[in-house]
Amino acid sequence: MPVHKPNLDPPFNVVRASHVEFGVTDLGRARAFYVDCLGLLATAQDPDALYLRGVEERNHHSIVLRRTHVPEIRALGFKLASEADLDRAAAWFTRRNLPVAFPDVPHQGRTLRTADGFGMPLEFYVQMDQVQSMLQRYAAHRGARIQRIDHINCFTPDVQASYDFYTEIGFRLTEYTETDEADARLWAVWLHRKGNVHDLAFTNGAGPRLHHIGLWTAGAADILHICDVMATSGWLSNMERGPGRHGISNAFFLYVRDPDGHRVELFTSDYLTVDPDLEPIRWSLRDPQRQTLWGHPAPKSWFEEGSPFAGVPLHEPALAAQPVVAR
Amino acid sequence: MPVHKPNLDPPFNVVRASHVEFGVTDLGRARAFYVDCLGLLATAQDPDALYLRGVEERNHHSIVLRRTHVPEIRALGFKLASEADLDRAAAWFTRRNLPVAFPDVPHQGRTLRTADGFGMPLEFYVQMDQVQSMLQRYAAHRGARIQRIDHINCFTPDVQASYDFYTEIGFRLTEYTETDEADARLWAVWLHRKGNVHDLAFTNGAGPRLHHIGLWTAGAADILHICDVMATSGWLSNMERGPGRHGISNAFFLYVRDPDGHRVELFTSDYLTVDPDLEPIRWSLRDPQRQTLWGHPAPKSWFEEGSPFAGVPLHEPALAAQPVVAR
Amino acid sequence: MPVHKPNLDPPFNVVRASHVEFGVTDLGRARAFYVDCLGLLATAQDPDALYLRGVEERNHHSIVLRRTHVPEIRALGFKLASEADLDRAAAWFTRRNLPVAFPDVPHQGRTLRTADGFGMPLEFYVQMDQVQSMLQRYAAHRGARIQRIDHINCFTPDVQASYDFYTEIGFRLTEYTETDEADARLWAVWLHRKGNVHDLAFTNGAGPRLHHIGLWTAGAADILHICDVMATSGWLSNMERGPGRHGISNAFFLYVRDPDGHRVELFTSDYLTVDPDLEPIRWSLRDPQRQTLWGHPAPKSWFEEGSPFAGVPLHEPALAAQPVVAR
Amino acid sequence: MPVHKPNLDPPFNVVRASHVEFGVTDLGRARAFYVDCLGLLATAQDPDALYLRGVEERNHHSIVLRRTHVPEIRALGFKLASEADLDRAAAWFTRRNLPVAFPDVPHQGRTLRTADGFGMPLEFYVQMDQVQSMLQRYAAHRGARIQRIDHINCFTPDVQASYDFYTEIGFRLTEYTETDEADARLWAVWLHRKGNVHDLAFTNGAGPRLHHIGLWTAGAADILHICDVMATSGWLSNMERGPGRHGISNAFFLYVRDPDGHRVELFTSDYLTVDPDLEPIRWSLRDPQRQTLWGHPAPKSWFEEGSPFAGVPLHEPALAAQPVVAR
Repeated sequence: MPVHKPNLDPPFNVVRASHVEFGVTDLGRARAFYVDCLGLLATAQDPDALYLRGVEERNHHSIVLRRTHVPEIRALGFKLASEADLDRAAAWFTRRNLPVAFPDVPHQGRTLRTADGFGMPLEFYVQMDQVQSMLQRYAAHRGARIQRIDHINCFTPDVQASYDFYTEIGFRLTEYTETDEADARLWAVWLHRKGNVHDLAFTNGAGPRLHHIGLWTAGAADILHICDVMATSGWLSNMERGPGRHGISNAFFLYVRDPDGHRVELFTSDYLTVDPDLEPIRWSLRDPQRQTLWGHPAPKSWFEEGSPFAGVPLHEPALAAQPVVAR
Repeated sequence: MPVHKPNLDPPFNVVRASHVEFGVTDLGRARAFYVDCLGLLATAQDPDALYLRGVEERNHHSIVLRRTHVPEIRALGFKLASEADLDRAAAWFTRRNLPVAFPDVPHQGRTLRTADGFGMPLEFYVQMDQVQSMLQRYAAHRGARIQRIDHINCFTPDVQASYDFYTEIGFRLTEYTETDEADARLWAVWLHRKGNVHDLAFTNGAGPRLHHIGLWTAGAADILHICDVMATSGWLSNMERGPGRHGISNAFFLYVRDPDGHRVELFTSDYLTVDPDLEPIRWSLRDPQRQTLWGHPAPKSWFEEGSPFAGVPLHEPALAAQPVVAR
Repeated sequence: MPVHKPNLDPPFNVVRASHVEFGVTDLGRARAFYVDCLGLLATAQDPDALYLRGVEERNHHSIVLRRTHVPEIRALGFKLASEADLDRAAAWFTRRNLPVAFPDVPHQGRTLRTADGFGMPLEFYVQMDQVQSMLQRYAAHRGARIQRIDHINCFTPDVQASYDFYTEIGFRLTEYTETDEADARLWAVWLHRKGNVHDLAFTNGAGPRLHHIGLWTAGAADILHICDVMATSGWLSNMERGPGRHGISNAFFLYVRDPDGHRVELFTSDYLTVDPDLEPIRWSLRDPQRQTLWGHPAPKSWFEEGSPFAGVPLHEPALAAQPVVAR
Repeated sequence: MPVHKPNLDPPFNVVRASHVEFGVTDLGRARAFYVDCLGLLATAQDPDALYLRGVEERNHHSIVLRRTHVPEIRALGFKLASEADLDRAAAWFTRRNLPVAFPDVPHQGRTLRTADGFGMPLEFYVQMDQVQSMLQRYAAHRGARIQRIDHINCFTPDVQASYDFYTEIGFRLTEYTETDEADARLWAVWLHRKGNVHDLAFTNGAGPRLHHIGLWTAGAADILHICDVMATSGWLSNMERGPGRHGISNAFFLYVRDPDGHRVELFTSDYLTVDPDLEPIRWSLRDPQRQTLWGHPAPKSWFEEGSPFAGVPLHEPALAAQPVVAR
């Protein structure tokens, strides 16, 4: 990898990964998973959608579950710093001949719907309805006591291209995996705006697809508890990988699958990355500890399965290298 | 203190502290505290009583809340190993001219009601209705995720006399506090049957009264969480002392008061004491770390307030020494 | 399984599993593992042996590492309640035509060396040199902050025979695995004396061999930390299984292998079992959650590998049934 | 308080609170406290200074201990985003007639030394020597396993004036305490740059003085452990307040005093504040839960004692209101 030069003067100011909209085929079953089991708070529900948030979030929603015919991802949401940034973003995407629309989105202010070069659906906005933080309403904390959304992780058919696109709009690299050839190629990148390891990550694979979203908990104990809960209340087969410690990001993690197969990571304990001169950390694709510091390989499903973006065609990845796989 | 010689061949075999019966003046309010806040499980409820247990307990109840006109303690329950032990216990108390009765007690087998020399109401039994352990029904764990009853702690007007009485029936000393005079006098004793620091403890004070019962949690994190819950859901003034680490027993603790003023300790992390030759640990009454390893003195209420036993007169303590008090 | 009837009047009183003697081929390397990495305290060392204990232990040692030519187990130690019990034990083993000897054992009082019917070397004693508890010397806690030895787990060629032998001398059953045939056969048993899930367990397999010893930590956080330490300080390949939650015993666990291949479990969070009428919990051999509540199968090595007892021949197990295996 | 309008286009870009320089009278004793007890890593030491960092920090130092004749604070360090920001900062302070100097500072690139209007010594820089992150060298983690510096908290004689000064250079308000009068006055403010509750806070009091620096740990368990360590290894009297949960910031905390009386907070579990439209949280000065959610008042020393800045005169505060005090 050539030296990472973060764009410290990006065309518009992305604050952070903010929300996702999941298409789910059974809202009741999805609510059982996200609210009754994982413990997310339901801000609002109508016949077609359920709006969820973590206990510290004052934004109306960080996950929207929308009733759809097939499981799919409908939007990846990022908050911008100001309305002027929103206009600059629209202009930037227009110059790139990428789609630009400002649909009405419930509970959000002016919202730009666009896509990246692979068709990944992006949603930029500045204002969202504000609701009560429940961080100090401890009696309402349930399940994994999820605090907030942390990040979005996607498969891309070309990690280098996705890296180039998002660093141009100001995302900064914190860690990356590459092949060990003399002409090393990027296998995965972790990119941030908000000051921890990532808001957005990309891994090599048939894409674009959502690999998972990451939800932040206060500590590993909350993740162990949700393992115990899921394993003994009918959600055992929804536990896909972990708990464990990532080499990359140092996070303590658990990957679970919702009733539609969408993947959610419970995630905690990474580190501060606000320094603009932070040197990105390189990992070899052949290093099993990059995946799990404790050596456990990830299952095959974890490398192969992901959620399609609604109406977006898949492309096979250019890079055929394979990481260590469990079974 | 003279050398402690545990009675390894006691007149009857006490297995452990098993349950208490609290007289409470408002069952609904008591349920709000014990079940909705602390997270104890309700095994059964009738108009006059609520039966509670911790998540690992298969015994029908470890706390009975009984509707009464005034707050009071009605029974301290201990499990015996066999029906023959129960008969031996009855004979032993009869020989001591202490009360002996076998009333019908709901959900318990043959039950001996008696009292110690100060009138402290004791209940011995062997069999209790068995119910489902909820230890691995993690989705039902709430509040402090209390696992089981651990111990009973009482004020006595004469610690030496209480020590003599209970060691004779097989309780073993693990730690004790005494004055620093040449002719040292016992201030407090911790006595066990089940193999950790205590099933029954006595502290110098107007008595007999119940000082508190101890409820076991899996770790300190559960205790910190219930602090957060109580402080933000209307129970702030019921938090009396802690959280902290005891010097004595090494336990991590929190003391709370129920709506009738009965004191409950959430307790975890003491140590194994099954070795018959375990040397009891001595603490000086003047050592503030015996109370709280981290130096925080206990509040005055903690030294002065306790729950009366129904119909049992109080006696002032013989020993006037005073420990370090906060305010 | 027929109803378990604990022997409440055993021929001699076993207090608990107390210590093991491991034959190791490189004392320096073993010290690096047990002391520098796991954090056990070294009570004493001479050229041929290293004596270790956990932070709460006042016994001189719970693990003896003795320099040997090949990895092997030399003794499984159990504490008895009194010298009279020791004499009764000698008489009982003599009547069984099992070996009886009273060798001098450093740091221990009168010590009976004998064996069970399969030749498993047993060591019974009452007194051991007492040393300082380090429980409240927190600055000296390192690694997994191990508190004490908890249990001993062995392969046996005949679980039923081992069960019969040890229940006769007073061990009590808490949990067991059996086959699902009409004529169910025992696959594994967990037996205790000290009041938690086990002091001694047996699993079907070529034996007798030691499967592992269990060391107690105060909570899961200590076990997660030692995973992080081992994975990043040269001990990654010594991590065999976990961390995870057992269905059986509900314990949070990690299995590691020492430099000679001896297996050690870090173990915490089981439950109290002192009630003589505690109903043993049955698990089906085909239930993957009995091994790991979260569904992870154990590796093949975990089912096949164990430590031989010095000079004791192996027997293939009578029972050929196989549990779920990972790889 | 009037509506908070963060300055989203500040004159120069402060990244975060980065380091402090403590004048200490006994470097050996200070090292015993910070390194041997708290577990900070020593990056470098010379006869006159000791450079410390947390386990995740790649900056050469976040605390400099410099041998001085009297305890004092010599610099509060903040990292800027670029060298151009450093020039803009110098220009801005010059325009304010505040001191501007570029002394050579060991291990740092070009460094601006200046002061705020009350004389509080500030140090701005962009580059510092980079060293190895020890985040995944878990075997080297000791004591409280401190990860990084989090914030700086100062007494000011005029909270409103300090608030005005620092918001002008881009600090954003997250929480504040004010009096309950119709014409409410600011008692304390929490201001951030890096995206959590604060990089810099001010409390009403004789000032300017340093109240404390905050050091981040991964969770509450690390803070409980350091309580146990300090209480049992000779540092009991250095424990000033806590552990507990702040109402403000929601952080779990412990305040300790170093051998020279400088105050250090161990701090964890606040929340993400990167949203520019985040509404600051108001607390009443009379609300005891703002200090400690669990109700424990802070000791008098906590309100009165602080570290002087070298050579900077003290001013009594304009505001005489008093919070709830313990003793």
